[in-house]
Formats: sequence, structure tokens, C-alpha cells
Amino acid sequence: MKVEGQSFRSIWYEKESDKIQIIDQTCLPYDFKIVTLSNLSEAAQAIQSMQVRGAPLIGVTAAFGVYLGLSADASDFGLEKTVQTLIETRPTAVNLHWALQQLKQKVLPLEPELRAKAALNSALAMAEEDVEINYAIGQHALKVIQKKASKKPGKTIHILTHCNAGWLATVDWGTALSGMYQAHEAGIDIHVYVDETRPRNQGTLSAWELSQHGIKNTVITDNAGGILMQKGEVDLVIVGTDRTTSNGDVCNKIGTYLKALAAADNNVPFYVALPGPTIDWSLNDGADIPIEQRSDDEIRIVQGLYNGKLSSVQIYPDHVAVGNPAFDVTPARLVSGLITERGVCEPDKLNTLYPEHAS
Amino acid sequence: MKVEGQSFRSIWYEKESDKIQIIDQTCLPYDFKIVTLSNLSEAAQAIQSMQVRGAPLIGVTAAFGVYLGLSADASDFGLEKTVQTLIETRPTAVNLHWALQQLKQKVLPLEPELRAKAALNSALAMAEEDVEINYAIGQHALKVIQKKASKKPGKTIHILTHCNAGWLATVDWGTALSGMYQAHEAGIDIHVYVDETRPRNQGTLSAWELSQHGIKNTVITDNAGGILMQKGEVDLVIVGTDRTTSNGDVCNKIGTYLKALAAADNNVPFYVALPGPTIDWSLNDGADIPIEQRSDDEIRIVQGLYNGKLSSVQIYPDHVAVGNPAFDVTPARLVSGLITERGVCEPDKLNTLYPEHAS
Repeated sequence: MKVEGQSFRSIWYEKESDKIQIIDQTCLPYDFKIVTLSNLSEAAQAIQSMQVRGAPLIGVTAAFGVYLGLSADASDFGLEKTVQTLIETRPTAVNLHWALQQLKQKVLPLEPELRAKAALNSALAMAEEDVEINYAIGQHALKVIQKKASKKPGKTIHILTHCNAGWLATVDWGTALSGMYQAHEAGIDIHVYVDETRPRNQGTLSAWELSQHGIKNTVITDNAGGILMQKGEVDLVIVGTDRTTSNGDVCNKIGTYLKALAAADNNVPFYVALPGPTIDWSLNDGADIPIEQRSDDEIRIVQGLYNGKLSSVQIYPDHVAVGNPAFDVTPARLVSGLITERGVCEPDKLNTLYPEHAS
Repeated sequence: MKVEGQSFRSIWYEKESDKIQIIDQTCLPYDFKIVTLSNLSEAAQAIQSMQVRGAPLIGVTAAFGVYLGLSADASDFGLEKTVQTLIETRPTAVNLHWALQQLKQKVLPLEPELRAKAALNSALAMAEEDVEINYAIGQHALKVIQKKASKKPGKTIHILTHCNAGWLATVDWGTALSGMYQAHEAGIDIHVYVDETRPRNQGTLSAWELSQHGIKNTVITDNAGGILMQKGEVDLVIVGTDRTTSNGDVCNKIGTYLKALAAADNNVPFYVALPGPTIDWSLNDGADIPIEQRSDDEIRIVQGLYNGKLSSVQIYPDHVAVGNPAFDVTPARLVSGLITERGVCEPDKLNTLYPEHAS
């Protein structure tokens, strides 16, 4: 999507220099910085330090990382080392592990001199597939937004979102934000309420994305969505998800569930945008999803500008006990619809969109 | 309550020096600092700069401020100037306005030389009344906690609270926290989940209070309460309130409503502790309560320690639009019980506890 009027993806391959380029997300929203990844360790470092984040983008970055690793050493040993180095960047990212194993299976049977090129082609294909899926999600979300807009002619459509499920978390378009970009392109007057999303305040990324692309938005505390819905100031909620069970329970960033409750209590439609690959067909109850407890420091340390420079302050002294569950589960009964690349369905009807998984 | 083993109130009159003492709450939780108020302008400054905060404490501080003002000038003019100076410290604090007008009515008919002493006695009486009311609230809340504890013998009782309705917001005991102090004194093993309560993070005051008094607690983000309730890790919710309508709708710090929804969805009892004087008998629908929009800077600027010194960082650049509604309304249907100084009642039964207002 656009940054200062120019189109960008979150990661791309520059053919001339044979290098990978990324946007350093640790500098956002304060500074827009493009970083070059020239070798395996730079790719691993980019994932580990969260210069790139969001499951789809991490997966694609890792695939490009395999290409960079094999460019230096395409032997069986080199492949093994490359895959291991990348897996260790984010030990809890299950899909990263899975994607790397898949890629390894693919290139291992090849002659070493063909491996790097094959990995590059796979990475490029993964990136394109991500863009296509997200674009398709946005097309279906657009219809949901259009329908709402048709009932409020001449009025602004207010959409609330949580965390960052935007193009920065994917290769392009995003999931939850994809439909908002497409509605904006279609000339629908939208305004987005962005939950700041403590503890990591990823809302700041959503606000930056939306503003750069010209979409009106307002950052609110995570506490504020309820009263806004009570006052009729939210027309729709659209969020992303990390994992959806086969029965439509939605695991997403901590706090999503509270917004789903408020939406249900105020008859505000609550939609979840999800790429098919994030559906966990092995689970049919969200309560079975383990909830990651993340570092206390995410709560204690807050980053911002101090005298114009990026700095951190400690808002809770070390002796204050803090707890940091990172996700919650929104039960299917609170979800108005799941927006996938294949269309929109009721949360308990995923099998109609993915009949190959219906069993 | 206790600070480093010693009993404190949030404000007190020191007879020997004829001065008022307060705890400077702007320094908490980093520094425990006692400040002397020797004249009207120091009292006004203490309220304005939020060295004292919380409706009950502001009211008592203002009453002591009248005493200090009249000690310097007890003429009609001096009284008028004193009251006006104090009203202007927090223009939106309706009860401050009301308390000061009451005090003025009381001392105006007196001979000037008797006015200061009368104001001091009124302030002391107001302080005592606040302590008595809060103690009584705690006694009734204690029964609620005891009942819960009797069903979980040998287990810790986990209570979730939002914002700071503790002794720092009152003269002593607090409202929502009063029952927790009394349960702790009664030997019940409790642990408190404290919502940090963005944007002002008053949870840090609750955590400080509770820890100083020896009560186990954990600070969590405002997003986290839902999953904790889903996982059965919260036995009770107890919050305070700024204003309760006659039908039991509860206006409290932004985000309270989201916790009430989660409590209802998970069968966790949700109690509101309130002193009778905060019931607004003129309203019977919480939707009629105007919601104060507070300064954007409360969201943008975060205070914490930087290199050991109290500093602020700006987490959202000036060009990011932010919204800051400060309160929300929890409908009576989500409230399990109202805990007042006269006992506990269902939210729509306030008139049984306050028959003098039943009409």
C-alpha cells in the first residue's frame, strides 16, 4: 500500500542487486527506513528483532532467508544450518517451523546448484500467494462494508479494529485492513477507530498504515471501544486472527474478546478476516488453544519519543508483579461472520467454504 | 492503610503545627512524599495538579482549603474568594462545587472570627464521615468475599479491579478496595488482578496500595481480564464508581463496562462499591450521563522512569488523531450487586436501602 504517495510492499526482492529489501518496523511510526538483507544472518536477525512481524510476513522473510543461506552454502549441511538458524529466531511461531520444513523437503532432493534458485522461486511464489489471498479477503470485506454504507447514504462508516492486521503484518493489503483499503479505493467514506492494543501498542502501526494511505483514523485506548459502541459510533468491527478453530472460535491478540462482547451487546456486526491457512482444522474448541504468556517487560517498558529521540521508560518498577497473556479466544457465537479469501461465512460454516477439510 | 508498616490516611490535620498534610500522589508509585498545605493557594494547587485525586479526597481537601483560606481572611470577601479559588481547581468536578457551596452556606451566617474554626470542624467531620462510610462498605464487601472463600476452602480468592478506588482516592480504606483490606485483615487469602487502566494507568496506584498493605496483586493490561475470566482465574470483580443512577446503572472509569460484559459472559460476580452520596437520584438511565472527553495528551504522553528519573515519552506523534472518552456506563443488568455503606443490594433495589429517596 502507499507510503507518502508511493506503493510499497513490506518485503520485496530486488533483482538488480540480488538482495531482499524490508521495511524496518521497529522504527515505525517514527521513522520510515528500508533495510537490505544480504545474507542469512541478516534475515534471521530481522525476524528475531521484529524488524518484520506478523505470521505471513515472517514466513515469507524466512523463505527468502533460505534463499540467502543457500546462496552461500547449498550443501546438505548448509541447508540444515540455514533452516535451523531461521527456526530459532521465533521458537513459538509454529507456522514458521512448518513453512521452513516444507521448503526444506522441496529443495533437499535437488542438486545443490539448483537449490538456491528453487528457494527464491518458492519465496517469490509465497509472497505472491499472500498478496492474492489478502486481496481476495479484501474483496469480500468490501461487500460487507458496501452493504453497511448503502444503509447510511452520505454518512461516514466507522469501523473499529484491534491490533495490526494490516499490510505491515503481511506482504501487502493485510487481512482485517484489506477491506478498508478497498472500500477507500471504491470511494466509500470510512473512518477507523484503532485500539492502541496494549501492551505492544501495535495500533500505532495500523494508524500509520491507514494515515499513509489516506484513510481517516483515530487511536483510542483499549478501554474505549465499549462506550463508542454504546453511543452508536461504531458501525462495524473487523479484526484479524492468529488461529481459527474448525468450529469458528477465533484466537487473536489479547483484548479482541472484550470487543466482541461489546459488539454483541450493542448489535454491532463483528467480523474476523482470515486467510484459509490460519484455520486449525485439528481443533474444534477454542478453549484448547494454549495461550502464550509473554515477557513482563512488554508491559513494564513503553517506547516513545523523548526530546525527539526514540527512548523507553519503565512504567512499573521491577517489584510490581505483572501478567502478560498475549491472546484470547472469541467464541464463534460472538462472531457475525468470517471473511476468508473464498468468501464470507457464518463462523460454524467454514466447512462449506473449505469442503476439502469437511469431515 | 499501611505504608511501609505504618498507618496513613491520604490527608490529615496536624494540630501542633496547625497544618494540613497530604501524600503527593503525583510521585507515586515511585516516591512516597508527604507535602504540607499551609495556605489556600497550596491547597488549591494540590487539587489542581492532582497531588490529591478521587472525588471524596478532593472534597475533603477543598474543605481544609476553606479553613486555610479563612485563617488568612475570614471576611465575606475572603470567604467568597476562597470558595471561588477552590471551585476553579477542577471545573468539571460537580461534587466539589456542591461541597464548597454547602460549606459556604454553613459558615457565612457566623461571625468572621468563628468561621475558620467552623470550617476546620466541618472538614474534620467530612474526613471522619468518609472513613466511616468506606469502612462500612468494606464490612459488607467482606461478607461477599467471605461467602466466596467459604466455597473454595484453602484456595486463594482472585479479585479483579479496575482503576483506583482505593484509600488514595478517599481519606482511608477506599471503596472497591476496602473489602479487600478487610478480607486480608480477616485472614482470607486474596490476590488482586489490577487493570492498569489506560490512559492514566491508575492501576499502578492500586498495586502500590495493595502491596504496601501486604496484599498480593498482579498488574495486567486492560485487555487481559477477559481471558483470565474465561480460564476461571477470577472469582470476583469489584470496582468503584463515580456516579450511579437510581436504577443502578454505573458510570465508572472507561473500560469498566468491558469487564462487566466479560464477567457476565463467564458467570463471574461483578460488584460495584459505592458510597450513598454518589448515587444520582435525579437520573434513572445511565445513557443520560454525559461522558467527559479528556485531553489527548493523557493518551499521547506516558510517564515512567528513564535512567532512574521520572520522565515522559510521547507514544503517538502529534499528527496521530486520538480520542479520549474518560468514562463508560455499565448497565444495571450486568451488575451482580451494589455494595453500599448500608448493605448490598441488587442494582434495581437501591430504594430499599435508601427509602428516604424512594419516590
